This record gives sequence, structure tokens and C-alpha cells, in this order.
Amino acid sequence: MSISAFAALAAKQALVAYDYEPAPLSPVDVEIDISHCGICHSDLHLIDNDWSVSEYPLVPGHEIVGTVVAAGPDAPHAVGQRVGVGWQRSACLACDLCKAGHENLCLKQQATCVGNMGGFARRIRVDGRFAFALPPSLDAAAAAPLLCGGATVFAPLRRWGVKAGMRVGVIGIGGLGHLALRFLRAMKCETTAFTSSPDKRDEALRLGADHTASSTHAGELRGHAGRFDFILDTVPARIDWIAYLQALKPNGTLCLVGAPPGLMQFPASLLLSGQRAICGSDIGSPSAIRATLAFAAEHGIGAQVERAPMAEVNAALQRVRENKARYRMVLEN
Amino acid sequence: MSISAFAALAAKQALVAYDYEPAPLSPVDVEIDISHCGICHSDLHLIDNDWSVSEYPLVPGHEIVGTVVAAGPDAPHAVGQRVGVGWQRSACLACDLCKAGHENLCLKQQATCVGNMGGFARRIRVDGRFAFALPPSLDAAAAAPLLCGGATVFAPLRRWGVKAGMRVGVIGIGGLGHLALRFLRAMKCETTAFTSSPDKRDEALRLGADHTASSTHAGELRGHAGRFDFILDTVPARIDWIAYLQALKPNGTLCLVGAPPGLMQFPASLLLSGQRAICGSDIGSPSAIRATLAFAAEHGIGAQVERAPMAEVNAALQRVRENKARYRMVLEN
Repeated sequence: MSISAFAALAAKQALVAYDYEPAPLSPVDVEIDISHCGICHSDLHLIDNDWSVSEYPLVPGHEIVGTVVAAGPDAPHAVGQRVGVGWQRSACLACDLCKAGHENLCLKQQATCVGNMGGFARRIRVDGRFAFALPPSLDAAAAAPLLCGGATVFAPLRRWGVKAGMRVGVIGIGGLGHLALRFLRAMKCETTAFTSSPDKRDEALRLGADHTASSTHAGELRGHAGRFDFILDTVPARIDWIAYLQALKPNGTLCLVGAPPGLMQFPASLLLSGQRAICGSDIGSPSAIRATLAFAAEHGIGAQVERAPMAEVNAALQRVRENKARYRMVLEN
Repeated sequence: MSISAFAALAAKQALVAYDYEPAPLSPVDVEIDISHCGICHSDLHLIDNDWSVSEYPLVPGHEIVGTVVAAGPDAPHAVGQRVGVGWQRSACLACDLCKAGHENLCLKQQATCVGNMGGFARRIRVDGRFAFALPPSLDAAAAAPLLCGGATVFAPLRRWGVKAGMRVGVIGIGGLGHLALRFLRAMKCETTAFTSSPDKRDEALRLGADHTASSTHAGELRGHAGRFDFILDTVPARIDWIAYLQALKPNGTLCLVGAPPGLMQFPASLLLSGQRAICGSDIGSPSAIRATLAFAAEHGIGAQVERAPMAEVNAALQRVRENKARYRMVLEN
């Protein structure tokens, strides 16, 4: 039975209603009746072919929540199970990276909506090993952004040993940053939200930040020298690398989850004195996604979302394009 | 009783015989009769005032081995104990960093030969808590370079979790790099020595490397893409950051222990895809120095040294200046 979706037929085009025939259900696949799908900035980049990887017709959407309505004999979920799907829809599961639990770095991984039909649709078929059981307490709409944005910020906090009592900075209070603030509050860290939007400062405090600061004011940044154990940069834009490296305590780490354009530039002495590190973090691995969902359920954490009917996808995309969503737009069937 | 030493009386000058009156022995101090002192490139930088921190008369030397000949009542070593002293001669021992075992990052630390009289001398007085008991099996001359150079390369291998079976690259086969090769062989890593000197390739294999490669040939570097869990850069010079970052496996780390001039430049995407990290490592902490000495004793590791009488210090310094020492010059009383 064909699947009703919304697709871009060419780069930078508005989405249109689009039906497609799904591939046969493989033994490990599940078919999911989609209830919600978050809109990530990556969806806009794919629609616009900013990364030169898009294939059209392109059905975006990779923060998917729904219910399993069909399952292959070897799929890990039964019909009726509520599940979520993120950026990744499969991996080889045989290479050293996969076997070490880093399936998110597998060279043969497939993305949910790159060369495959994504979640702006009624249904989707994916490898059931990349669909994750949703804890019953989580609200479907608020949980959808956890599958990509949430896991993307939670994974490095876990990997780099962020723990109670640490001073943590979060640069950028958007879809990713606002979830980082909520996670860090639950982790009992002392958190500073760096934002370029003065109107987001009060909101950041409500979201869990202990302090707010300008992300761009050079003088204010200098005032934070030597302050942070960990800084999470969620902004895919050039920032003052030197000021943020200086803002780290000795042994501190600056972690990027968004890729800024151009070259990073800073003196190596900033890494040596104080043994600082700068690193990047990719999408969450399956184990990181499970950990994100479990932590969110334990602490009652979800995204702050604006809801829109799936049929109003173009208006919703435009709101994301204009950075107006507070803080994640979620489409509903 | 005054101490006989060799001092630079002004920047870039040859050293001359120089006697000074030591400060009174404090309750935690020890006075050490120096048998050996290694020559580190930092000593040349201090003599030349390259870092604008030098004070003259300047007695260099911070890879010291000798025997305690006087000890304050609270010093941790008894007269007769053989000890070593590295770059650091004291710290506040009260700040959070000191209390966490990162005395090497203490803001109030003092260096052995910056504003203090160093180890190119007959004797020295230092805080006994920064003198380290030398395992009896270690040869004094071969152990002297472990106190600074050895701990500087051993500490990051330990901190960043380098372990058996990992593929590790070492850039630069000099005083630091040759010790890294010996440590990594004992750790059962698969090690590649990157050097710009073709004549060091065979020596690198003898020192413990499994493979050698050009550190500068762009084509050869590209051939190592995705190969290493960890790369230790011991060269205080600009290298091809992009090629070395690309040479890391996913989750790999590039660690600098020498500070190159100018700005590091690379695209952030190299950190994000593959979750790579780049970091710096400072001198070893006291616990890292103790671990270095213990590991060296367990595995019979010492520096490959050339010996020279203390009185021939200027000729020895010149050999280091010309990068002729294989691989560490050590002065003997």
C-alpha cells in the first residue's frame, strides 16, 4: 500500500503531497504509523541541497514518533509498540565501529531522509534496530526532537564525563541548546546559556540555565575566562574560538555539535596551557539514543515544541527557516 | 654554603661558572647533590629569553637526578634517597587543581629554572614534594630525561586512555618522541614514527616503532587516512593539521605536547565527522611523574642519552641547538 508523504521535487522548492510505494518489508524492518515528526534545521539543508547529497523527490523528516503497524519476523519490536526514529536508519552492524557501539560512525550507515523517504509522511519503513522503544511516560510530540536533537546534545555530555557540580556553557539556545539546558539542570550542573538574542535570556533561565551571557560580546566573553569545565557549541556558525577556549578551565573541553563554515583558527598555546581540548560530536549512537530517552523519562524532560498539522508543513518549515520556533516545530498527523 | 653552578648572565650568552647562596632550607625542602641533569630544548628557550620570562643570572636545567644531602623536618625524603626533579619545583597545594592532582596546572606553580636556580649545578634546593624517589633499577643518566620529557609524553598516553592494540602515531623523533616510542612498545601499541629526517627511520624502528613515515610528505600522509586511534605531536612546529586530523580514526585524538607558532587552522567538519578531538598536554603532574618512573622501571625504559661533563655544558648545549643529540644530552657531575 502506497505511503502518503510530503516531498520537495527539486532543491529549494516548497513541499507537495507525494505518494510512494515503499520497499518490501525486510525481516528486520518495521513499518511505523507516524504520529509526530520534528523539524530539524538539517531538513532545510536537505531541501535546499546545501550539502550536495540530496536526492529528489525528497521526503524530509528524521525526528519521528509513531506506532509499529507491521514488523518483519526478526524485527525487535512488535506491532503496537510506540517507537522513535532519528537521523540514522541503518548501519552495517558488522564493522569494528558498529561492534564497538559506534554505529553512528559506520561508513555504510544510511540516513533516514538522504536517499530514503523520511518522516514528513503517514508511515515509514526502517530497520527495526534503528527504531527505539519510547518510554510510556514521554509525550509523543515533546519526545520526537529527542531522537535527533536531544541525542545529539546528550551523547557528548555523557561521553565527555559531564557530571554534577560542573560548570557548563551552552552556546545557542535553539532546538538543540534548549534541550541541553534541560539535561544539564537535571544533571545538577551549573549552566550558563550563551545567546545572541537578548529576548532569549529570560527563557533560558526558565529552561534551566543558572546564568545567561552574550554569545558574541567580546568583553563579556573575556569575563568568563577560566570558568567552564565543558562548553557545548550548538551553533553552526563562526564563533570567537579564542574567547571560548579561554573560557575553559584547565582540562576543560569545547565540544561542537554544529559545523561552522570556514576554518577554525586559534593558537596552539591555548590547548597546551591548561590542557584544553576541542572536539566534535556527531549524531547519537543507538546506545546514546536509548540513554537519552531513558534519562528524559526519568527526569520528565521533553522538548518545548510548537505543533502544526502535517498538512501545514510549508508554513512550519518557514517558521524554522526564520528561527521563530520556540524551540522545536513538530508536525502532527 | 654556596652552590656552584653554570649560568647565563644575559640572553643568548654562553654559560659561565657561577656561585650563588641558596635560600634557607624550609621545613619541606630537600637539598640534592646533583649527579646528572638532562638538557631540554626549553633550556635553550630560557637562555635565549624566547618566552620573555627569563631572569638573569639564569641557571638552566630541569631534568635533575641526584641524592638528598639535607632535608627539612617535614620533607618526604630522607638524606641518602636518590630523587629526580622536573620542570616544576612547587605549587600552592591548596587550590582545587592541586587538590585534584593537577598540581602541574596550578596558577601559583614555580618552575625549577624560571626565577629559580636550576640543575646545571652541583646542588639544588627544592620543595621535597616535587622531588620524586627514583626506582633503584633506573640508571641515573637515562632516567634524568624521564623527569621532564618522559613524563610529558607518558602523561597524555595515560590520560587519553591509550592501550594495547591501539594504533598510535608519534610525530617527531627527538628527546620526547624517542621516549614515546619506547613507552608505546611496552604498552603493546602498533606505533608509526613520523619524522622529517630519513636517517632517523631505521633508528625509530630500533627504538620501538612498528612503522615509519614521512612527517611532511603530503601524499604519504594522505595514505594514512583513518588509521590512528591517537597521534602524539612532539614537534613544536607547524604541521599539516588537516592531514593529521584525517589520519585519525573515528573517535581518535591528536595531542600536542609542543607549541607550534602561529595559528592552527582546519575546518570544523574534520572534528564533527568522526568525532575527532585535538588537545594539548602540559608537563606531567606529580602523580604522572611517579607513574612514568614506575612504568619505566617495570619495563626497563630509559632515554637514549649522550653524556657530557657538566663543565662542558656550552658544547653540549650547542649539540642540542643543532639537533645533533641522539636523543637526549645529559650533563654529569
